[in-house]
Amino acid sequence: MILTVTLNTALDITYRTAALTPHATNRVAEVSERPGGKGINVARVLAALGHESVVTGFVGGRTGDALRELLAAEGPGGQPAHAAVTDAPVTDALVTDALVPIAGTTRRTIAVVDETTGDTTQLNEPGPTVTPAEWAAFLTSYEGLAARADAVALCGSLPPGIHVGAYAELVRLARAAGRPVLLDTSGEPLRRGIAARPDLVKPNADELAQLTGSREPLRATRDARRRGGRSVVASLGAAGLLAATPDGSWRAAPPTAVRGNPTGAGDSAVAGLLSGLVERLPWPERLARAVALSAATVLAPAAGEFDREAYADLLPRVAVTEQSSQPEQESHAPRQHR
Amino acid sequence: MILTVTLNTALDITYRTAALTPHATNRVAEVSERPGGKGINVARVLAALGHESVVTGFVGGRTGDALRELLAAEGPGGQPAHAAVTDAPVTDALVTDALVPIAGTTRRTIAVVDETTGDTTQLNEPGPTVTPAEWAAFLTSYEGLAARADAVALCGSLPPGIHVGAYAELVRLARAAGRPVLLDTSGEPLRRGIAARPDLVKPNADELAQLTGSREPLRATRDARRRGGRSVVASLGAAGLLAATPDGSWRAAPPTAVRGNPTGAGDSAVAGLLSGLVERLPWPERLARAVALSAATVLAPAAGEFDREAYADLLPRVAVTEQSSQPEQESHAPRQHR
Repeated sequence: MILTVTLNTALDITYRTAALTPHATNRVAEVSERPGGKGINVARVLAALGHESVVTGFVGGRTGDALRELLAAEGPGGQPAHAAVTDAPVTDALVTDALVPIAGTTRRTIAVVDETTGDTTQLNEPGPTVTPAEWAAFLTSYEGLAARADAVALCGSLPPGIHVGAYAELVRLARAAGRPVLLDTSGEPLRRGIAARPDLVKPNADELAQLTGSREPLRATRDARRRGGRSVVASLGAAGLLAATPDGSWRAAPPTAVRGNPTGAGDSAVAGLLSGLVERLPWPERLARAVALSAATVLAPAAGEFDREAYADLLPRVAVTEQSSQPEQESHAPRQHR
Repeated sequence: MILTVTLNTALDITYRTAALTPHATNRVAEVSERPGGKGINVARVLAALGHESVVTGFVGGRTGDALRELLAAEGPGGQPAHAAVTDAPVTDALVTDALVPIAGTTRRTIAVVDETTGDTTQLNEPGPTVTPAEWAAFLTSYEGLAARADAVALCGSLPPGIHVGAYAELVRLARAAGRPVLLDTSGEPLRRGIAARPDLVKPNADELAQLTGSREPLRATRDARRRGGRSVVASLGAAGLLAATPDGSWRAAPPTAVRGNPTGAGDSAVAGLLSGLVERLPWPERLARAVALSAATVLAPAAGEFDREAYADLLPRVAVTEQSSQPEQESHAPRQHR
């Protein structure tokens, strides 16, 4: 079982409009809702890959009730929340709800999709304030769950009320339980969390630059390792992934640039890395899976889903190239793995 | 008791953002919710004026539950949903919930207030589909409520599934029960509804032009009377109201142009007209009240509330001017009523 943590879960609402006109009244043509937050998205992709997962974090209020109901309906044999989307992936394994109830109300995020341009305007509520007692209840639950997990993923932003070192605390607890732990967050929670020595961090280019001060990806990725990340996999958008690990450094790139909605592409990459870790795949295969899943997510019509056919087509065509361990010396040519 | 009907109720959500940037991710700084839909807004203002009111229409799903909970909390002694707004009016009389439950989910409306410019971008969900059985249940309830009402107000758009002659049917039922009935809607439901001879219709300039084909307000208002409205009060924005009634025609204008958020100004005018009708005020006083309430709503910081002090200040200063009954001849000069 893989445990994913989403401290700031969300009810993700999508509005389709003919065209979004600012400072006017806009009629919404179509409304859809689904459980959201990065760790929940990761769990959904893990389930589609056949990995059982448990989601935890906080949930509360009417939007929290709606989130749990939709999550329960997403399981194998359940009715997907996005039933209108005919090619939505069917999950193959169970996503178990271990969310911790709180007095506050789970936030909504609203994606307004302009059907004329295809552009999306995103509105994100801040999320509920979590009390110290609720955080303590979560920690107790988390320790029990982490002890049973094959891997732990800590994903997304912190809701109000949670201390900035929260991810560092969760990394330490997972490590104390002997469980591999992945951290995917940004800003100060990432800075503190990486110092607690997670097994894997997956920053994007902006998060990596903010952490290290460098916009040179290989240099920044290696710097992030020195800050505590045992392995660092940077997502570089259309350019794919750059990994710095104890076993070597690699670049993994999709065979062609893909166009579409990048929402959830990073979460799919995390699911690819985690599943590869649990399956003990060599790094090049983990990275190829993560890149193919990520690109197949960009290509899917519904935000945050992935296109299974595109995934199967892309996977053998991802180019994984080993990087020199001594970039200053360029001692040998890159090797092609796939 | 005044009965207000809102067939397409809404949970009105307001998002405050530093600035709304289309096609980007926007963090919402503050979220507030309140029960909405035109008839519910009218009832809220009636309550503030000391008139007991009953709200009916349809309600369903989690957003419907939230709407009912907030409505119950708005009553005298209740906790207003907009507790953060310190100068929100306290209601003086009861708003009774007689909403009819449906299987569908009550729509949300989202007002995104850009704090930099003060402009509002509105997103309105379409509303639930109402089944024939639900409409039949509503009609039974409505007949019982209308028989006890001093006046009936039919307000706003029709949700999907409701036949376009629905307001005509409700006008006829109120008239059969001997109750005065006001209609405030637009388009084809207005065209059909006015033919059923409501006591009062309150179109705005656009609705009136759409109904009559004329942009000349006095001509269009009189045309609307010929189509079946016993009295017609057109709201002309900052220019105030224009009334054509069996007792004469009047213009009523605020003493100065007011700047602010016009959301709910029309609903406040309806509440002014209805309360004046039930109190058997002469037309000029009804119109003065409606104009003052409407302007005090534009001036209030929270959308759809009215500023009580501004109302008290504006009321004696509204200019009500009788219009010639024979506009073609201009037989005598307008008389000043206040």
